[in-house]
Amino acid sequence: MRMTDIIEKKRDGGVLSTEEIRFMVKGYTDGSIPDYQMSAMLMAILLKGMDRRETLDLTMAMVDSGETLDLSRINGVKADKHSTGGVGDKTSLILCPMVAAQGVKIAKMSGRGLGHTGGTIDKLESFPGFNTGISEETFINNVNEFGIAIAGQTADLDPADKKMYALRDVTGTVPSIPLIVSSIMSKKLAAGADVIVLDVKSGSGSFMKTEEAAHELAENLTAVGKMAGKKTVAVITDMDEPLGNAVGNALEVKEAIAVLKGEVKGELLELCLTLGSCILTEAGFAANDAEARKMLLCGIEDGTALKKLAELVEGQKGDPKAVYDTSMLPEAKVKFEAISKRSGYVKHISAADVGLVSMHLGGGRATKESEIDLSVGVMLHKKVGDFVEVGESLGTIHASDLAKAEEAARLLENCYTLVPEKVEKPKFIKGIVR
Amino acid sequence: MRMTDIIEKKRDGGVLSTEEIRFMVKGYTDGSIPDYQMSAMLMAILLKGMDRRETLDLTMAMVDSGETLDLSRINGVKADKHSTGGVGDKTSLILCPMVAAQGVKIAKMSGRGLGHTGGTIDKLESFPGFNTGISEETFINNVNEFGIAIAGQTADLDPADKKMYALRDVTGTVPSIPLIVSSIMSKKLAAGADVIVLDVKSGSGSFMKTEEAAHELAENLTAVGKMAGKKTVAVITDMDEPLGNAVGNALEVKEAIAVLKGEVKGELLELCLTLGSCILTEAGFAANDAEARKMLLCGIEDGTALKKLAELVEGQKGDPKAVYDTSMLPEAKVKFEAISKRSGYVKHISAADVGLVSMHLGGGRATKESEIDLSVGVMLHKKVGDFVEVGESLGTIHASDLAKAEEAARLLENCYTLVPEKVEKPKFIKGIVR
Repeated sequence: MRMTDIIEKKRDGGVLSTEEIRFMVKGYTDGSIPDYQMSAMLMAILLKGMDRRETLDLTMAMVDSGETLDLSRINGVKADKHSTGGVGDKTSLILCPMVAAQGVKIAKMSGRGLGHTGGTIDKLESFPGFNTGISEETFINNVNEFGIAIAGQTADLDPADKKMYALRDVTGTVPSIPLIVSSIMSKKLAAGADVIVLDVKSGSGSFMKTEEAAHELAENLTAVGKMAGKKTVAVITDMDEPLGNAVGNALEVKEAIAVLKGEVKGELLELCLTLGSCILTEAGFAANDAEARKMLLCGIEDGTALKKLAELVEGQKGDPKAVYDTSMLPEAKVKFEAISKRSGYVKHISAADVGLVSMHLGGGRATKESEIDLSVGVMLHKKVGDFVEVGESLGTIHASDLAKAEEAARLLENCYTLVPEKVEKPKFIKGIVR
Repeated sequence: MRMTDIIEKKRDGGVLSTEEIRFMVKGYTDGSIPDYQMSAMLMAILLKGMDRRETLDLTMAMVDSGETLDLSRINGVKADKHSTGGVGDKTSLILCPMVAAQGVKIAKMSGRGLGHTGGTIDKLESFPGFNTGISEETFINNVNEFGIAIAGQTADLDPADKKMYALRDVTGTVPSIPLIVSSIMSKKLAAGADVIVLDVKSGSGSFMKTEEAAHELAENLTAVGKMAGKKTVAVITDMDEPLGNAVGNALEVKEAIAVLKGEVKGELLELCLTLGSCILTEAGFAANDAEARKMLLCGIEDGTALKKLAELVEGQKGDPKAVYDTSMLPEAKVKFEAISKRSGYVKHISAADVGLVSMHLGGGRATKESEIDLSVGVMLHKKVGDFVEVGESLGTIHASDLAKAEEAARLLENCYTLVPEKVEKPKFIKGIVR
């Protein structure tokens, strides 16, 4: 088999065989197929597409490129969650304890963030002492003991995805449904859960600019998950503004705790209830969505969800007291209000640009090696639909020094689109694909 | 400017600016743009196309990637010829002396062959002592003195094409009109001639399988040549069988000499008359095709065309006596008839497979470093339309030993498609695009 022939087949719109796809992924992972052949192939896939069978084969070949997690030693139903990425997305920090409090096991592998803010792993490190680099042994023991563990992805899980993702990033081959689906699903399948829920973002701040594109992605994700024998559900959510009010690592942890305490409602809670009820119903823990939502809300009211977060932190050598006393979390030196010079209704907040504000403050990584400042970020006070008066604060900047804070405040104002007429807030949950 | 942005623009069907194309070619040539980005771009160009302006810009950026030949010290009109490649194609060896004998200057850069047979340069080395590695100084002096010189391409001419061609070859990005056009025309433009004639092959043995595709390529080639200020004509010719009867380096030289002597007519002479009259009319040396053909035939009858070949050989340190006494040219040890076991009319002769027979005999290069045996090859006795009796010879194998000859004879029989019904020979000259 020759890679050139396989490239030509896809270039001419052909359907690749299982053997051809496995040959390509194996060869690319072991280095016998060079980057320049793979990038030509990725472009051909992007422009000519792949059917569901090819996408599943690609996904499974990527799973088989490295180690997989064996969760068979964990009793009960194991669930995992993935989001296609968003600014201010602290959903995992809320959802995982909420669901684990109901008895579904959460064994989650999570990545570090590259870009605007940290990933879930970075956010969890806001808890003093928290260790995300635990061994597979500890990981499995913790899930069995506490019902929850969240660890950093190991290097030997899905190496094909790591190599392919890095290549796609620099060759204009990111926005392709089969490539996105295989990247997401191979990681989830390698991590071994029984139930997978996916938060597919739609709108200007996301990969999928239109609702149709988001729907197509959601349908392909769930199809591949099901073909691989997993219970898979995708929820399509709006991303025309950052999620919730906090953007920045420790700030997001504080907001997550506030939701788990029942102090913050709104979209963030709504999203966690929606994703959570998908998990509970798919896992067979609830008969329907209404029952599942009731269970999840009950876990917030009686404090068991928050307690589960404390157990997660304690199980990974963090200080669980910080869950109840958030003053123990990293706190920025400077707080500075971003005062609006304009008035009007908030029509849109560019999530990507708010991400850049956080990045500017030191809350995100420019390169893989960058250190991030967990304390900095932005607390937004105005969201889409709100009215802003001249002189009101759009948000509080949390910074390490005044110069950075002032610049961030200036940048933040540019993230807002204000209009004179009243703005109807768009529907947040746009659809569920089961 | 970032290469990723340019790739994405082409991927999405955009039109690249002159600056973007120059940035890309310059960066790829100097190594600042890696292979994997260029190959993704090449696939995007293949699948999304390029308009004429982009193709011209790509061509000119490639010309500017290296040195160009300054032919201003040559008096008169300089002509160059290119063929999209064919098995048994010894046209240059006949056409160049024929045209030079009429006073049009031939300053031709030619490549070595990779694959089935040698290139023009290899074939010329059949003349004892012939030197294709002459200096630019000698090259220009010879054209001024004899009206003709044919030299190997220097490494510093069009380095972008060398790098891009090697990459296209292994990334499935060869059959793209803008990429083929820019590759051919950048080399021709860098070589500096005023008149360029192109022999575009059409049919199963060529790049362009259909006549429509060949027409499209011809139109794009001439358009780019004219936009670059050159007189450019393309002749579309049939390639459903090898050209002429000889396939193999010295054998082709002998056939070329026979045509120049007026001993061989047929398609090969017809092609040289067609290409030659395009050059003479474009150069203003003839009022029309009829006059041009008459001049060219006259040059054969009175021996001036053959004499011009002898001058070419002498000017480059070869022995001109070999032009008149072809027994001085390399001669294979073994001659072996390929006897047909079937009978019927010849419907088709796979040119690519005849090329492989020559390759098997040692007449072509498997890798750039391979030595080739100039003496070996095949003399075909049956061409499309001929009737073959059982026991008749399809062709004479010229080999270095009997074992190779027997195997070649077996392979040659498989190149022939014989049918019971009479076969109409297809039209050889399929069109001229001026």
